[in-house]
Amino acid sequence: MPANQQILLDNRPQGEATVANFKLVTSQTPALADGQVLVRHHFLSLDPYMRGRMNDSKSYAASQPLGEVMIGGTVGEVVESKHPKFQPGDKVVGMGGWQEYSVVDAGQPGALRKVDTTHVPLSHYLGAVGMPGVTAWYGLVKIINPKAGDTVVVSAATGAVGSAFGALAKARGCRAVGIAGGPDKCKYAVEELGFDACIDYKQHKDAYSLAKALKDVCPKGIDGYFENVGGMVLDAVLLRMNAFGRIAVCGMIAGYDGQPLPLANPALILVNRLKVEGFIVSEHMEVWPEALTELGTLVGTGKLRPRETVAQGLAAAPEAFMGLLKGKNFGKQLVKLI
Amino acid sequence: MPANQQILLDNRPQGEATVANFKLVTSQTPALADGQVLVRHHFLSLDPYMRGRMNDSKSYAASQPLGEVMIGGTVGEVVESKHPKFQPGDKVVGMGGWQEYSVVDAGQPGALRKVDTTHVPLSHYLGAVGMPGVTAWYGLVKIINPKAGDTVVVSAATGAVGSAFGALAKARGCRAVGIAGGPDKCKYAVEELGFDACIDYKQHKDAYSLAKALKDVCPKGIDGYFENVGGMVLDAVLLRMNAFGRIAVCGMIAGYDGQPLPLANPALILVNRLKVEGFIVSEHMEVWPEALTELGTLVGTGKLRPRETVAQGLAAAPEAFMGLLKGKNFGKQLVKLI
Repeated sequence: MPANQQILLDNRPQGEATVANFKLVTSQTPALADGQVLVRHHFLSLDPYMRGRMNDSKSYAASQPLGEVMIGGTVGEVVESKHPKFQPGDKVVGMGGWQEYSVVDAGQPGALRKVDTTHVPLSHYLGAVGMPGVTAWYGLVKIINPKAGDTVVVSAATGAVGSAFGALAKARGCRAVGIAGGPDKCKYAVEELGFDACIDYKQHKDAYSLAKALKDVCPKGIDGYFENVGGMVLDAVLLRMNAFGRIAVCGMIAGYDGQPLPLANPALILVNRLKVEGFIVSEHMEVWPEALTELGTLVGTGKLRPRETVAQGLAAAPEAFMGLLKGKNFGKQLVKLI
Repeated sequence: MPANQQILLDNRPQGEATVANFKLVTSQTPALADGQVLVRHHFLSLDPYMRGRMNDSKSYAASQPLGEVMIGGTVGEVVESKHPKFQPGDKVVGMGGWQEYSVVDAGQPGALRKVDTTHVPLSHYLGAVGMPGVTAWYGLVKIINPKAGDTVVVSAATGAVGSAFGALAKARGCRAVGIAGGPDKCKYAVEELGFDACIDYKQHKDAYSLAKALKDVCPKGIDGYFENVGGMVLDAVLLRMNAFGRIAVCGMIAGYDGQPLPLANPALILVNRLKVEGFIVSEHMEVWPEALTELGTLVGTGKLRPRETVAQGLAAAPEAFMGLLKGKNFGKQLVKLI
């Protein structure tokens, strides 16, 4: 029964989330019951959706209960097993939360999945070949559904979702344009991730300026947009959408902190006969096998080389999460625990 | 060659549209060429979409050219024909514009359609059994696509589109809730149009108050919304949408006059995984026969008894159009020309 560092949600944010919303505690891992598995986490995933869970909201997915271990995706290794399908040494992905170890009812569908690390590094199962990758796949394939030659745009282009989106779009013959914050991220998006162009939104003071920049790199307009941020970026993209364009709404980071961000001109949805659709990828488990197969192949063949920002040790998780919400990470944000 | 009163678009609105944007002139109808038909208009249709055409917009449908007869749907009677399929006395529906007569190239597909006035009054072919009715049909059937028992809501509920929407929704076993301006319209929506409930938005000072009223009459939430107005009403409905709800965006009257109206909380599209889709019914001609058959039957059997507000004489059209934009009409706004 090893000691287990854990991070709990201690109190809910009033406006902006802060590290003081969390509390680090140490407990003992309990003895295993039949059917349970003890997993030692190698990496914890930090994702924007976690900010939404910190609110006491009735309408959204599930609110994170106070005083419990923060929800989160994890990859790690089985260290003890009372389930016949899992052996010590197995590499697994699950939802272990912000802690060093988790005890998992391994028979529960979807609770724990063995993964092969021959061609794909373990950490990538939290990013390109995990939930973020499937998120990009669903938005692109099921909502935007582009033809070869279409122009598609993604915000937060160098993040875990955005970088997978770029590779998936290029594989379909699209013109892929990214939006990211800062010249380094934009350079990386084009040179390493294969985007045809990338716009630094920090160079633009308002939506009209950003829309003008989009016009230059999307000379035929925008057919599909994958929304990760909301706010000014969405306003700008709406000004350049083609008739019958599709917008997959996956994230509104900018709006997570307290006040909602308005949409300046919703009449453009009518003017351009757009389809705007929100989704949560965990509600579409039926697409995961197909999506993961494609994503694994893209990573295995080097066509998708995702970047990671890695914080060291569980205690660093809250600060790293604040950085993620402010866009300080570069690529997938992880916490390395071992 | 009878004298033909016509209303031209004289200049474009700066902000709010006014009667001074139009000019009344008189011309002579030209002699007919082969294949042409002379139609005397009995009724001219006034519709919110016309406000959009008055702007000099590159992205929307087609801008109304200055100095030309305002676009508009008309019903009337053939008075002279050089086309073998049309005879004097035929009742026809077309896009004759804001004038007393039109000369139509009758062979052009969709230019002129003969209608039967045995069971359906001629004017209804501009409303319930015409473009507005098909608009309601498309939004309900093709975008909202409700199951029996779903709750669907429509704004501008007593208008031409809204009243058809109510009848079509009831025919599908839905709970139909209207939103309209003033107690008379709300009473009429429930007592004459068959809505299960109708909310007077003028009784509410903000979206939260209106959302509370919606909660009372939509105890199971809202599954589908047909958007005719935008602004506060859309903000309020978004607060009450169920997960996986559908919003058909057909009109944003409130935003037509100059400044765009923002959407307060677009993140709700993500939170509730909504589909929001704009459409223009003239781009979906393939559904018109099916829709018109159902709408004609609803009117012919008395299940849809649309109300009309009728202005007298062509010269009254601009003033009546201003009233329509301000919601002063009660039901379908027409101009009677004969």
